[in-house]
Amino acid sequence: MDRIFDFIGGNFGEWEIISINTIVGNPIEKASHLRIFQSIMEKENQGIWTLKGFRSNLRYTEKHEKEQLTAIQANLGRNEATLAALIPIRKSALWWELAQDERRKIFENQSHHTEIGLQYLPAIARRLYHSRDIGEPFDFLTWFEYAPEHEVAFEKLLAQLRASEEWSYVDREIDIRLIKV
Amino acid sequence: MDRIFDFIGGNFGEWEIISINTIVGNPIEKASHLRIFQSIMEKENQGIWTLKGFRSNLRYTEKHEKEQLTAIQANLGRNEATLAALIPIRKSALWWELAQDERRKIFENQSHHTEIGLQYLPAIARRLYHSRDIGEPFDFLTWFEYAPEHEVAFEKLLAQLRASEEWSYVDREIDIRLIKV
Repeated sequence: MDRIFDFIGGNFGEWEIISINTIVGNPIEKASHLRIFQSIMEKENQGIWTLKGFRSNLRYTEKHEKEQLTAIQANLGRNEATLAALIPIRKSALWWELAQDERRKIFENQSHHTEIGLQYLPAIARRLYHSRDIGEPFDFLTWFEYAPEHEVAFEKLLAQLRASEEWSYVDREIDIRLIKV
Repeated sequence: MDRIFDFIGGNFGEWEIISINTIVGNPIEKASHLRIFQSIMEKENQGIWTLKGFRSNLRYTEKHEKEQLTAIQANLGRNEATLAALIPIRKSALWWELAQDERRKIFENQSHHTEIGLQYLPAIARRLYHSRDIGEPFDFLTWFEYAPEHEVAFEKLLAQLRASEEWSYVDREIDIRLIKV
């Protein structure tokens, strides 16, 4: 169970929520703080909302890309990374009906997803959590951590991803910004 | 939650267990029957053992293969398909450390996984359930349904898969055979 995590929006937690912006689709309820911990996969009334996600193997990354990522990726929890973003996203049925090679083509050949992310490493640490397979309202919980001096770079990273072909398949997206308490 | 299923070995159920053979790795406990139903993801003391798995999108299948599969695949629950096999498998850490393109190459280019399966359709209906991401002891629960006249064909299908390069990464495998009650 150590790979499943709960992202709990509530009245306390190690991250203070600065803003919750609905980019597309239905909004979520307001909360002032976020806490993250390993899920025990039991239903409990936790906070105002709970989003669950699991870490998994990379689904599209090829060997040469994996080697580049491994070489320069940043760890979570760095002292200087006092800002974070939690961006839950859902992709349309059209995306999920595509075959692996079709999704890969859109993800990388057309949208340069990994290539864009690499440009901002190690400044912007990223982690992906999968939610679709466990019946959650979002397909993915994307998580970013960075120092205040990289906030502008982070906005640019997001703008590049949102302008991509891949993002035309995103039908729900909430942008939650946080600061370490 | 409609995509997560419990495979419960116990004293009753719609499938009678004919045999449980450990192919590689640790065995599981004996049980006389199997029942399958949608999981509510709550921990309960259910039967002798419970294996959980979720249905998901295809991870390696390319467009041309998906089209072939869709054209000839068989449904579960056919009246004549009175025999079944539940084969939980786990793959080694080495497999999971491979990048997507490396796994795809072993899965199809070298092991012809989809191509082999296609040879036995529609006689042998197959369904894959994913378990690794929800902290289960196996990575996959593979499920097969067929009529008694296709039992020999099913053994041949299994032999072909087990002889493949892909199977050299399987470090736990239990072969459970069943007959409809």
